[in-house]
Amino acid sequence: MKAHEIAALVAGTLSGDPNVDITCVADVRSATPSDAAFAEKTETVQTGAGCLLVPLDFEGDFAGCLIKVKAPKLAFAILAAELHPRKMRGPEIHPSAIVAGSASVGDGVFVGAFTCVGENSRIGDGTQLRAGAKVGDDVRIGQNCVLHPNSFVEDGCTLGNNVVLHTGAVVGADGFGYVADESGNYHKFPQIGSVIIEDDVEIGANTCVDRGALGETRIGAGTKIDNLVQIAHNVQIGRRVVIAAQTGISGSTVIEDDCVIGGQVGMGDHALVRSGAVIGSQAGVLPGKIVRRGVWWGTPVQPLDEYKRQNAHVKGLERLKAEVQILKQKIYSTSSDPLEDPEQRPLDRP
Amino acid sequence: MKAHEIAALVAGTLSGDPNVDITCVADVRSATPSDAAFAEKTETVQTGAGCLLVPLDFEGDFAGCLIKVKAPKLAFAILAAELHPRKMRGPEIHPSAIVAGSASVGDGVFVGAFTCVGENSRIGDGTQLRAGAKVGDDVRIGQNCVLHPNSFVEDGCTLGNNVVLHTGAVVGADGFGYVADESGNYHKFPQIGSVIIEDDVEIGANTCVDRGALGETRIGAGTKIDNLVQIAHNVQIGRRVVIAAQTGISGSTVIEDDCVIGGQVGMGDHALVRSGAVIGSQAGVLPGKIVRRGVWWGTPVQPLDEYKRQNAHVKGLERLKAEVQILKQKIYSTSSDPLEDPEQRPLDRP
Amino acid sequence: MKAHEIAALVAGTLSGDPNVDITCVADVRSATPSDAAFAEKTETVQTGAGCLLVPLDFEGDFAGCLIKVKAPKLAFAILAAELHPRKMRGPEIHPSAIVAGSASVGDGVFVGAFTCVGENSRIGDGTQLRAGAKVGDDVRIGQNCVLHPNSFVEDGCTLGNNVVLHTGAVVGADGFGYVADESGNYHKFPQIGSVIIEDDVEIGANTCVDRGALGETRIGAGTKIDNLVQIAHNVQIGRRVVIAAQTGISGSTVIEDDCVIGGQVGMGDHALVRSGAVIGSQAGVLPGKIVRRGVWWGTPVQPLDEYKRQNAHVKGLERLKAEVQILKQKIYSTSSDPLEDPEQRPLDRP
Repeated sequence: MKAHEIAALVAGTLSGDPNVDITCVADVRSATPSDAAFAEKTETVQTGAGCLLVPLDFEGDFAGCLIKVKAPKLAFAILAAELHPRKMRGPEIHPSAIVAGSASVGDGVFVGAFTCVGENSRIGDGTQLRAGAKVGDDVRIGQNCVLHPNSFVEDGCTLGNNVVLHTGAVVGADGFGYVADESGNYHKFPQIGSVIIEDDVEIGANTCVDRGALGETRIGAGTKIDNLVQIAHNVQIGRRVVIAAQTGISGSTVIEDDCVIGGQVGMGDHALVRSGAVIGSQAGVLPGKIVRRGVWWGTPVQPLDEYKRQNAHVKGLERLKAEVQILKQKIYSTSSDPLEDPEQRPLDRP
Repeated sequence: MKAHEIAALVAGTLSGDPNVDITCVADVRSATPSDAAFAEKTETVQTGAGCLLVPLDFEGDFAGCLIKVKAPKLAFAILAAELHPRKMRGPEIHPSAIVAGSASVGDGVFVGAFTCVGENSRIGDGTQLRAGAKVGDDVRIGQNCVLHPNSFVEDGCTLGNNVVLHTGAVVGADGFGYVADESGNYHKFPQIGSVIIEDDVEIGANTCVDRGALGETRIGAGTKIDNLVQIAHNVQIGRRVVIAAQTGISGSTVIEDDCVIGGQVGMGDHALVRSGAVIGSQAGVLPGKIVRRGVWWGTPVQPLDEYKRQNAHVKGLERLKAEVQILKQKIYSTSSDPLEDPEQRPLDRP
Repeated sequence: MKAHEIAALVAGTLSGDPNVDITCVADVRSATPSDAAFAEKTETVQTGAGCLLVPLDFEGDFAGCLIKVKAPKLAFAILAAELHPRKMRGPEIHPSAIVAGSASVGDGVFVGAFTCVGENSRIGDGTQLRAGAKVGDDVRIGQNCVLHPNSFVEDGCTLGNNVVLHTGAVVGADGFGYVADESGNYHKFPQIGSVIIEDDVEIGANTCVDRGALGETRIGAGTKIDNLVQIAHNVQIGRRVVIAAQTGISGSTVIEDDCVIGGQVGMGDHALVRSGAVIGSQAGVLPGKIVRRGVWWGTPVQPLDEYKRQNAHVKGLERLKAEVQILKQKIYSTSSDPLEDPEQRPLDRP
C-alpha cells in the first residue's frame, strides 16, 4: 500500500514521500521502513517506521512519511484491517466434516476438519467453521462469521453477520436454574430458550453464553466480549458494550448500549446497567441493582468518587483511632471524677 | 398433555376445563393458549397461558385452566421435564467415533461424531456422547448421562447415572501441585488420583474438576455446578450442593451437603463448609477456615449480619471523622493550655 | 523399585530393609506396604507404607523402610516422577489426523485422533497431541510436549520443550483490543503478534493465553499456570512463576521471575510485579501499579501487614464509634453552653 493510499483511507494529511510502500503495521518502537506505526503524542518519537500516523497537532520531527489524522490509533486500526485482513480459508467443505442433509451452507463457506452442522441449520456466505467447531440443529449463522476451533453453537441459536466466536466459546448451553423440592433435591427449571447474537459481535475464547430459560439471551450488535466470561440465561446486552475477561453476569440482568464492563466483575441477577455506565474491574453488582450512567467501582458497586473517598477514610482509620485515644486521655486527665481516671480505662469496658 | 393429566402429575387442584391441551411451558408474560405457565403471587396475573399453576392461596381471576399447587415453580419444573424431555439421540455409534476394542458400550447409547472412548472404559445404557466428547481409558460412565460436545473425562475417572457434563467441561485434568527445589524450580507433585462424580450431578460448560493428587476428588449426588467453575484436587463436595459460575475451590476443601455457593466465590485450601451454609457471591474463604451453617458474605467471609453491620460502619466513616473533628475543636477551644491550641494542631503530630 | 534405589535417587539415608519393593507413591494415611509415602513432621505417623520419606530430624518410630532426606515432599515428588512417569502414547499418527503436507513431525511423536497440524508447523520429538488437539499454521512445538485433548495452538505461536497444555487450553487467540470511533463503534486493534511459551511450562485446563497485539506474549521457562486463567496480549511472565486458578492478567503487564500469584487475582494492564512478589488470592492490582518483592493482599493490593492492620481497624470500627459516642456525651454533659446540650444532638447536623 502506498503512503498516499493510506492517507486517503484514513482521511489524513500527508507530508513526505507519498509513494513509500507500506506492507505491515507495527509497534512504534519495533517498526521498520516497510511498516506503518502510530503515535498519540505531539513530540518526536523514536521509530524506524516508514510511515507514521500522528495527531493533527503533532510538532515533532520525522524523517519518513507523516500522516496527520484526528485519531491516530483509530486510523492505525483501520489501516491494519486493510493490511492484515482476516485469514481466508476455503471455500471448502472438508471431507471429514459432518453436514446434515437438511442443513444449508452458503457460498464461499469454509467447513473445516472435524466440524458438524446439524439438521436444518443454515450457514451464511463467507462464514468459516474452523477445525472442530460444532453447530447444533436449527441454528442460523449469518455471513462472514468465524467460528474458531472447538467453538460450539447449541440447537436453535442465532448468530448475525460478522460474528466471531473464539476458540472454545460455548453459545447456548443450558442456563443454571433449579427448583428445590421439600427434600432439598433440585429439579431443573426448563432451559428451553435460545441465544441471539447480533451482527459484529466478538465472543472470547472459552466464554459461555447460556440459552434463555424460557425466553432468549441476547447480545446486541457491535458488542465485544473477552475470554472466560459467563453470560447467564436471559441476560440482555445492548449494542457496543465491551466486557473484559472473566466477568460474570447473572440471569436476566440487562446491560444497555455503550457500557464498558471491566474484568472479573460479578453482577447479580435482574440488575440493570444503564446506557453509558462504566464498571471497574472486580466490582460486584448486587441483584436488582440499578447502575446509572457514570463510573462505578467496588463491591458493592458505588460511584467511583464515593469509592475513592471511602477508601481514603478506611486508609485514615489508624490516624482517626489515634486521635480518639488522645481525646480520651485529654478528657479524662481533666476530669474531676476519679472513677473515670484513664488509668482505669473506663472506655475499655463498654 | 391434558390439563387434568398435569393436575395429576403435580398433585394440584384443577378448576376450569380439564381437557385443555397443553404442549409447552412458557413464561407467564409470553404464554399462549397451548402453554402452561406459573405464578407465585396470589393476585391476578396478565397471561395468555392456557393453563396456570398457582399457589394454594391464589385469589386472582383467570379465564383458563387453573391448577393450585403448594409450590408452583416446582410444579412447573416437573411439568416442563415431561413436556420438554431431554433430546434423544441415537442409539448410534457414529462411523467416525473411535471406540477402543476393550471398551464396553451399553444399550441405547449415542456415540457421536469425532468422539473417543479409551481402553477398558464402560459407557452405561442410554448415555449420550455428543460430537467431540472424549473419554479416556479406564473410565466408568453410568446410565443416561449426557456428555455435551467437546467435554472430556480423563483416564480412571467415574461418573454415576444421570450425570450431565456441559460443553467443554473437563473432568480429571491434573491438579495444580508443585514442590520447589533449592533453586526455585518446580517439580510436579504427583497428580495420580481420580475423580468420582455421583448420580444426578450437572457440571457446567468449561468447568474444570481436577483429579485428586493421591486420593480422589468427589462430587456428591444431586449437586449442580455452573459454568467456568474450578474444582481443585481432592476437593470433597457433598450432596445437593449448588455452586454458581466462576467460583473456585482450592485443594482438599470440603463442602458438606446442602450448601449454596454463589458465583465468583474463592475458597482457599483445606477449608470446611458445614452443611447448610450459604456463601454469597464474590466471597473469599481463607485456607483452613470453617464456615458454619448460616449465610456468609464478603472477603474474608463473615456472617451476613456482621458483614452488613461492618459495611454500614464503613459507610458511616465520613460522619465519624467529622464528629471527631468537632470534638477536637470543642476540647481545645476550652483548653487552658496554650500549647494545645487547635491552631497548632497538636493531634496532627502523633 | 528397591528402597535402596529410592534412597540413592533422593540422596537420602536409609534405615530398614534396603530391598523392599515399592511400586507406587501414596498418601501417608492410605499407603500400603508396596507404597512409598512422605511425612514432614518429626514424630511417629500412622501409615501402612512400605517406605517412608521423612525429614532429617525425624524421631518417630517406623516399622518399614525409613529414608531421611532434607526435603521429604520434594523427594516424594522426584520419586513419583520415576514410579509414575507420564503416560506414553504412540508413536503413531492416527489415521484420522490431518497433518499438512508442509508440516514436519519428529520422532516418536503421537498425533491422536481428530487432531490437526497446520501448514509449515513443526512438532518436536516425543511430543504427544492427544485427541482433538489442534495446531495452526507456522507453529513451532518443541520436544516431549503434551497437548491434552481439545487444546489449541493458534498460527505462528511457539512452544519450547516439555510444555504441557491441559485440556481445552487456548494459546494464541486474539487479544482483546478495540478502538472506538466517533459513533462509539469499535474497530479491532490489530492482534497480529504471537505467543512464546518457553521450556517446562504447564498451562491449565481451559486457560487462555492471548497472542500479542503487535509484539509477543511470553511465558518464561518453568512457569506453572493453573486452570481457567486469562493471560492477555503482550503480557510478559518470567521464569518459575506460579499462577493459581481463575486469575486474570491484563494487557502488557510484566511479572518477573519467581513470583507466586494466588487464585482469582485480577491485574490491570501495564502493571509490574517485581521478582519474588507473592500476591494473595482475590487481590486486585491496579493498572500501572508496581508490586515489589514481598507478600501482597487485598484490593487494591497492599503489603500483607498493612492489609491486616487495616482489616483490624475496620473490624474495630464498632468499638471506635462507641468510644466517640461516649466522649461526645462526656464533653457535652460538662458543657456550659446550653446550645450544645447533647439532647439537642448538635453533632447530628454536620
